[in-house]
Amino acid sequence: MTSTDSLGVMHGIRNVKVVKSLLANNDLVAEANRQTFAAHGVLAINIIASPGAGKTSAIIRLIQALEGRARIAVIEGDIAGSIDTEKVLAAGAADAVQINTGGGCHLEASMIQQALDDLDLGQAELLIIENVGNLICPNYWKLGEQLRLCLASTAEGHDKPLKYPDVFAASDVIVINKSDLAELVDFDRKIFIELVRALNEHAPIFEISCRSGAGVAELAEWLLAQRG
Amino acid sequence: MTSTDSLGVMHGIRNVKVVKSLLANNDLVAEANRQTFAAHGVLAINIIASPGAGKTSAIIRLIQALEGRARIAVIEGDIAGSIDTEKVLAAGAADAVQINTGGGCHLEASMIQQALDDLDLGQAELLIIENVGNLICPNYWKLGEQLRLCLASTAEGHDKPLKYPDVFAASDVIVINKSDLAELVDFDRKIFIELVRALNEHAPIFEISCRSGAGVAELAEWLLAQRG
Repeated sequence: MTSTDSLGVMHGIRNVKVVKSLLANNDLVAEANRQTFAAHGVLAINIIASPGAGKTSAIIRLIQALEGRARIAVIEGDIAGSIDTEKVLAAGAADAVQINTGGGCHLEASMIQQALDDLDLGQAELLIIENVGNLICPNYWKLGEQLRLCLASTAEGHDKPLKYPDVFAASDVIVINKSDLAELVDFDRKIFIELVRALNEHAPIFEISCRSGAGVAELAEWLLAQRG
Repeated sequence: MTSTDSLGVMHGIRNVKVVKSLLANNDLVAEANRQTFAAHGVLAINIIASPGAGKTSAIIRLIQALEGRARIAVIEGDIAGSIDTEKVLAAGAADAVQINTGGGCHLEASMIQQALDDLDLGQAELLIIENVGNLICPNYWKLGEQLRLCLASTAEGHDKPLKYPDVFAASDVIVINKSDLAELVDFDRKIFIELVRALNEHAPIFEISCRSGAGVAELAEWLLAQRG
């Protein structure tokens, strides 16, 4: 658990030297986290998405899809509360830790480092980190993850890669959630995929419905295969 | 038009003195903006919402609902692109200016001040400012608006006030969009309203569907009445 002074998360800082130094320090801690994950043979996945895109539901579906084959530990990042940690533990997470950012708009590597003190990585093959709901800020702070997963829901519209290009460009895998709503909300997957491909040539794109479970097995298989 | 160095928007700054000074400066510019709005008899509304909640669609619906009764100028805040400005002008906005934050996660008062150079406030009774899609960071930066409007879509789930409390606490009016999807996505308006009321006793809560137009007239009337 960790908490950031709420003033520490207000942005638009133009003091480039301060910011560069903070990011450089973050990168060092992220590298240490990455080594910790490697030492435990754990594949760490950083999920970045808008509020309400279905991050927690996707984690629960992945835990269920891999039951008996891979254990999943979870770090939940939220501004406040611990409801998501309770949910993933109830769903069968191997272990879970809540980080409350206290108003902060993203997780940082040092928060993950602290959370690892309370997490039994020996009990898991995958570690899923649910970042704070925000398509912008989390993209600038590496956590040490081996995979960055960008989750977008059909209800947000197919133009999201155009509006928030950086996260779609920097992610290793793109997941479209709420596929069951696609027709109802006029989500045009062809346009969405074209917009993603203009930013990111290689990341696989999965389409799932956390409501029905459609597509989750394919995503789970792919993630597991990345553990190598 | 304004553009921020992309490093200027990376956050988590712990240098509280720097941040306090930046916010204090922002407040001064916001106050100057507020006086500009008052001098023109314009009611300025700052819309804060997640990506894909329906900010632009709501603005288009409000322009249509008030056609012939009140003219609406628009400032569109986006990381990149000008598609929303084109949309609101096509829908009949009195005038519109695009701000590209160049990666930045929120608008600042100085960006609005610059945008006002290109905007004919004499042509409008309302000014709607569409902030960058983000429920967290925009809440800390005043723009000089008289009304802060928090827009949440049913597809995001009824737990959003619990997860992102600050913006629901600080807003003058709360709007639930995509009411037509409420049943399909198991959105429980009773829970949502209870969560909002625990944070914010007085802000009126409207429910609209930008798809069908339901509820838009009531919201438009209320906004117009706030102009006084």
